[in-house]
Amino acid sequence: MSKKVLIVGGVAGGASAAARLRRLDEDAEIILFERGEYISFANCGLPYYVGGVITDRDNLLVQTVEGMKNRFNIDIRVKSEVTKIDREKKEVEVITDGKSYRESYDYLILSPGAAPFVPPIKGIDKTTFYTLRNMEDVDKIKARVVENKPKRAVVVGGGYVGVEMAENLRELDIDVTLVEAAEQIMGPLDIEMARILEKQLLDNGIKLILNDAVDSLEEEQKIVVSLKSGKKLESDILILAIGVRPENKLAKECGLAIGERGGIKVNEYMETSDPSIYAVGDAIEVKDFITGMDTLIPLAGPANKQGRIAADNISGRKVKYNGTQGTSIIKVFDLTGASTGNNEKMLKKSGIPYLKSYTHSGSHAGYYPGAFPMTIKLLFSPEDGKILGAQAVGRDGVDKRIDVIATAIRQGLTVYDLEELELAYAPPYSSAKDPVNMAGYTASNILKGDMKVIHWDEIDRINKQEYFILDVRTDLEYETGYIEGSTNIPLDKLRDRLNEIPKNKKILVYCKIGLRGYIAYRILFQNGYDVYNLSGGYDIYLSANY
Amino acid sequence: MSKKVLIVGGVAGGASAAARLRRLDEDAEIILFERGEYISFANCGLPYYVGGVITDRDNLLVQTVEGMKNRFNIDIRVKSEVTKIDREKKEVEVITDGKSYRESYDYLILSPGAAPFVPPIKGIDKTTFYTLRNMEDVDKIKARVVENKPKRAVVVGGGYVGVEMAENLRELDIDVTLVEAAEQIMGPLDIEMARILEKQLLDNGIKLILNDAVDSLEEEQKIVVSLKSGKKLESDILILAIGVRPENKLAKECGLAIGERGGIKVNEYMETSDPSIYAVGDAIEVKDFITGMDTLIPLAGPANKQGRIAADNISGRKVKYNGTQGTSIIKVFDLTGASTGNNEKMLKKSGIPYLKSYTHSGSHAGYYPGAFPMTIKLLFSPEDGKILGAQAVGRDGVDKRIDVIATAIRQGLTVYDLEELELAYAPPYSSAKDPVNMAGYTASNILKGDMKVIHWDEIDRINKQEYFILDVRTDLEYETGYIEGSTNIPLDKLRDRLNEIPKNKKILVYCKIGLRGYIAYRILFQNGYDVYNLSGGYDIYLSANY
Ligand SMILES: Cc1cc2nc3c(=O)[nH]c(=O)nc-3n(C[C@H](O)[C@H](O)[C@H](O)COP(=O)(O)OP(=O)(O)OC[C@H]3O[C@@H](n4cnc5c(N)ncnc54)[C@H](O)[C@@H]3O)c2cc1C
Ligand SMILES: Cc1cc2nc3c(=O)[nH]c(=O)nc-3n(C[C@H](O)[C@H](O)[C@H](O)COP(=O)(O)OP(=O)(O)OC[C@H]3O[C@@H](n4cnc5c(N)ncnc54)[C@H](O)[C@@H]3O)c2cc1C
Ligand SMILES: CC(C)(COP(=O)(O)OP(=O)(O)OC[C@H]1O[C@@H](n2cnc3c(N)ncnc32)[C@H](O)[C@@H]1OP(=O)(O)O)[C@@H](O)C(=O)NCCC(=O)NCCS
Ligand SMILES: CC(C)(COP(=O)(O)OP(=O)(O)OC[C@H]1O[C@@H](n2cnc3c(N)ncnc32)[C@H](O)[C@@H]1OP(=O)(O)O)[C@@H](O)C(=O)NCCC(=O)NCCS
Repeated sequence: MSKKVLIVGGVAGGASAAARLRRLDEDAEIILFERGEYISFANCGLPYYVGGVITDRDNLLVQTVEGMKNRFNIDIRVKSEVTKIDREKKEVEVITDGKSYRESYDYLILSPGAAPFVPPIKGIDKTTFYTLRNMEDVDKIKARVVENKPKRAVVVGGGYVGVEMAENLRELDIDVTLVEAAEQIMGPLDIEMARILEKQLLDNGIKLILNDAVDSLEEEQKIVVSLKSGKKLESDILILAIGVRPENKLAKECGLAIGERGGIKVNEYMETSDPSIYAVGDAIEVKDFITGMDTLIPLAGPANKQGRIAADNISGRKVKYNGTQGTSIIKVFDLTGASTGNNEKMLKKSGIPYLKSYTHSGSHAGYYPGAFPMTIKLLFSPEDGKILGAQAVGRDGVDKRIDVIATAIRQGLTVYDLEELELAYAPPYSSAKDPVNMAGYTASNILKGDMKVIHWDEIDRINKQEYFILDVRTDLEYETGYIEGSTNIPLDKLRDRLNEIPKNKKILVYCKIGLRGYIAYRILFQNGYDVYNLSGGYDIYLSANY
Repeated sequence: MSKKVLIVGGVAGGASAAARLRRLDEDAEIILFERGEYISFANCGLPYYVGGVITDRDNLLVQTVEGMKNRFNIDIRVKSEVTKIDREKKEVEVITDGKSYRESYDYLILSPGAAPFVPPIKGIDKTTFYTLRNMEDVDKIKARVVENKPKRAVVVGGGYVGVEMAENLRELDIDVTLVEAAEQIMGPLDIEMARILEKQLLDNGIKLILNDAVDSLEEEQKIVVSLKSGKKLESDILILAIGVRPENKLAKECGLAIGERGGIKVNEYMETSDPSIYAVGDAIEVKDFITGMDTLIPLAGPANKQGRIAADNISGRKVKYNGTQGTSIIKVFDLTGASTGNNEKMLKKSGIPYLKSYTHSGSHAGYYPGAFPMTIKLLFSPEDGKILGAQAVGRDGVDKRIDVIATAIRQGLTVYDLEELELAYAPPYSSAKDPVNMAGYTASNILKGDMKVIHWDEIDRINKQEYFILDVRTDLEYETGYIEGSTNIPLDKLRDRLNEIPKNKKILVYCKIGLRGYIAYRILFQNGYDVYNLSGGYDIYLSANY
């Protein structure tokens, strides 16, 4: 007998599950419920439609109700909200057009997503504000932008959606202020990497307020955003992008297990605590691929994959989902920031020991036009060099390097393995030693003890009496700025001027990016000095302290 | 006591070995001999200097003699040819300025590279022609191009250097003819992938002659290139880029083991048959990472890595080189072609069983501007799905996908592992299912038997009586061209028109890229048909037969 499968939610996880299910089972009865008017739309493209980068609204609709019905023979019911799950009877309650009915199931797949978090700010009930999740949201923002031509915008929240919205509003020549309560934007990155993107926002005319949160809102002609610090911002449009919360109401009310972070609990087969009910996407808790701990990682790739896996398992194929590593990426004007695995903040929180390295490498060979430096931060285990996480910021080729490292992480590789990777090299694409190889070399050198390092955040804390700070850049570079208390001996003169370096102090050596510092390190170390190289060089110190 | 290390060859392998050696050993005496005038130049950039993409000649010199001396305290002797190795005495003979002397060694590193192959064509001794390997070569070509302003060029050889030279001469508005003796250009790619690049050459005004070789040369005012076919080409400049041969003379003459393909034989520590002599780079034979067989893979990444490893081993660190997989890439105007691992031709030759899949995916999300399709060919083991090789052609993002797969190959991953990779997705960079995931899904479906396929090269050979050829594209697509004898039923009508499909024939279904064909396959298969999907769709069939 053919199965009857109901799906709640018709976008990333839900639509993917429906399509896969049909491919595997031509006979299944598949009904897909979607509260909104549209299915299969490109959530991730919404900010770019606001900014006019995506010009045609129809392009956001990856699949239409009609198209999906015709192709996959799926009973699609939009404007239909599932309001209750009756696990006993294996039925759901659906409300459409104000009327309610019941529909039975053999299997139920929940992919209800997550809802923008709206905090109970004083005055918020009397203020016009926007969140961005679906077509309805984007239509409202677009209409407001087109009709009212706002001159000033306040975006609250410096995560992916907030930053993308800030950029896109700025593309419309709006005077944008981005407000973030934490000390940095872009939580998936560590602070020194986020700093590079923050500077990019500033350089592109966006005002940035960190360490400050919205205290209250008022609206008359204009919107007044009062911050905890006392600062007041006037605005013509207000966007809240403070993060999302898993849509767990349905699941909770019918007694499915919910995790500590509010996501629906599932096993590795995407099964909830009720074996007839599967859940996928932003609504669930996943295993962090690095730590194995339960967490929320609301991303489209995982949602799509989980949807496919739920369909597989319902069709009798035992397929496992092996956790989410949180590989993610953002364009910030002409820069790119990306990360995979755990960041330093997360490792610290979990008490996982780690080492780190910074490298700056050209996106491709320096002698071929258009190469632009990228910064790579690698986090790895002090025991065996296993890669725990990576972050990169730069112009082109950042996505490539993060994807290569994401692939390495997925297989549990070490920094030694990165040295060996044989990546495609021709001058327009890379260097004979790819930035990933270079990160591997540098991390391995730290791990093996071939280079002892000091990090950017330790510089201002070291005892300056104990250290001789040696700047091995050229005279010219030194003149443009240096670390206080440092002495300049250009690397290429170092062997001749060793007598100027005191034997009774630790040597902290640095250059622009860390490479010359490392060569100086090797010279000094072999001459009997106790040396430390500033990992990532003056560049990372500078960008972290812009 | 400090070691004395001599290095023969001062570019990729040699200079890398020297630098690494110094970092590891401040006391070693290191002498680097280079026959030419320059060390550490960018071989790979040479064609782009001819074409004016790289404007400044100095940029080609990654390191100078002076710079390298100062930084690494290396005794660099240019215009110094090592002419003999006396293994007994552990000495080499060097000729410089016509004078010869001897230099002793504890260790010797050979990185003499490879020499352009110049076949004994009739009349070649009386004809001006150019090969491209070093600064001297490029200076000559550049001078000729600048001074004589050639209107017509013939480039012989359709490998990397030939194609890059053809492109760069074309950039100078020269009328270029590329002659290749084989049936395709770009040997690392299989023919149907190379075809896409061939078309690109044609579309950019380069004349392409395949399956034809140079028979004889004549030069008076102009150069006349006569081909075996009888065709005659007139030209103002002639470039030979027929491949390279390892520089094995020194090694051979002193009795070091030489492999069947003419490369110096080394073990995994880069040691030759004489434990005091190491060899690296284009001059050696490496283990093919896939087959384990000895082969020649003259590429800069491997040369640099091998140089580093030789230095490590000489310094007493036991480091292994684990073989070369041949990851390589080429820009052909605004297209990119890349490959890693073995191609189909190599697998056939080695008698290694394989399956293959083709996918076409957008470089990034279709709804975000600028997405361009790329074709990925995956070769994998029919037993366990282990990836044996991959090729990709497209515009942007080809390098990324090949690097991800190269990383996967390096770890012995299977096509199933590709399904799981969690790669960075935001609309400007990728899709929620990255092209690599998509290639993984498709290959896995073939491997699991979820989709039986027929390949583009079988189409014209199948018995058309046995098959019902079903085109599931739209009417409009069908009208623009189709496979002979096919019937058009658009996918979205298929379920309603099943009765039009004969039950007594095999069904060969196809669409544009293979995806709709696969969905049709799943419908038909579950309705009891014996179905085959054209992998890669009509697109690959068309591009292979342009
Ligand atoms: C502006 C924006 C930009 C983003 N950019 C990126 C990016 O660049 N990269 C990335 O990886 N991810 C990005 N994401 C996240 C990504 O879109 C989500 O991870 C993904 O869509 C989650 O899929 P899902 O199926 O869990 O939820 P959704 O795609 O949100 O789908 C859930 C659907 O379920 C419906 N629903 C909920 N409850 C019910 C109910 N009771 N009855 C009926 N229907 C219901 C909702 O209306 C909704 O349409 C972005 C998200 C947004 C909002
Ligand atoms: C035009 C061109 C484009 C290329 N493009 C790419 C590319 O895009 N990607 C890629 O990966 N690879 C590319 N390569 C290949 C790459 O340059 C080589 O693989 C790499 O340089 C090999 O390094 P090597 O040290 O073995 O040899 P080389 O770099 O050639 O160095 C060998 C040196 O040894 C010297 N020498 C030889 N014999 C003696 C002797 N007896 N005494 C003293 N000196 C001697 C030679 O003069 C030469 O300078 C390209 C090569 C060329 C020529
Ligand atoms: C549109 C949508 C329903 C499509 O779902 P889908 O059919 O599973 O996905 P795709 O169109 O990517 O096709 C993938 C299938 O085609 C197959 N395929 C892809 N290319 C192929 C080719 N060249 N030949 C054969 N098969 C191919 C894959 O193997 C896969 O099939 P499988 O899962 O059965 O193995 C779903 O992706 C969606 O709703 N997307 C929009 C919402 C969204 O994701 N939002 C968040 C991101 S903005
Ligand atoms: C110029 C040349 C001599 C440099 O050799 P090199 O010093 O070994 O290589 P690089 O300059 O890339 O530096 C790599 C070293 O810096 C270290 N490094 C790189 N970035 C670093 C950073 N940010 N912090 C600390 N160390 C860093 C690496 O660990 C590596 O050192 P190791 O090998 O001891 O581990 C050599 O690359 C060369 O001759 N190149 C041109 C010729 C050529 O390759 N041609 C073919 C391609 S066109």
